[in-house]
Amino acid sequence: MPRSTRRRPALAHPATEEIDLFDVLHALSDPTRMTIVRVLRAEPERACGTFPVDVAPSTLSHHFKVLRESGLISQREEANRRFSALRAADLEHRFPGLLDTVLAAHDRTAAENTE
Amino acid sequence: MPRSTRRRPALAHPATEEIDLFDVLHALSDPTRMTIVRVLRAEPERACGTFPVDVAPSTLSHHFKVLRESGLISQREEANRRFSALRAADLEHRFPGLLDTVLAAHDRTAAENTE
Repeated sequence: MPRSTRRRPALAHPATEEIDLFDVLHALSDPTRMTIVRVLRAEPERACGTFPVDVAPSTLSHHFKVLRESGLISQREEANRRFSALRAADLEHRFPGLLDTVLAAHDRTAAENTE
Repeated sequence: MPRSTRRRPALAHPATEEIDLFDVLHALSDPTRMTIVRVLRAEPERACGTFPVDVAPSTLSHHFKVLRESGLISQREEANRRFSALRAADLEHRFPGLLDTVLAAHDRTAAENTE
């Protein structure tokens, strides 16, 4: 057996066909998680500690776990850093139009709050 | 002051412009609440005890409260019965396409489960 270079258990991700609608809706029902999703829509991936959110590290870690387990984001580890990416294509395949429609709804809300 | 015929406090409903996206997503993230919404999409209103859901009355009461306070449904009382209706037009005005897209996503999931 080859020597493993992995120091932590592999990160669990649901397969595209296993993505659950209720998990996705729950994941999107929180402002911090919505911010993470919006940031990730604009770039291919991002290191976990660099998101513009103001929550404690343990809380943020929980939010990333909810997002990953729902199928909204994928995560990978490299050189002691964890990178996140939006599973936009998987989501679109699984639930066509859902992510765009929810984000458009959030854009309306965000526009109101800055008026 | 006219004598009130109301025996309980008036049921609170958010105004259309106050409907919160996170509240709506949270309300839709539960299978029982999703069933209630789907039933109400097909008829103008329905008495609360007549929905095809298998949960305890206190749990059901909580689900209706979450749905009403999110703005997804309206409720009115008449002759000791409480009737619920989907606020489809208000939702469409507030977040265009959102309810239809979520319900279409749920239709896909429901179709899988009966295959």
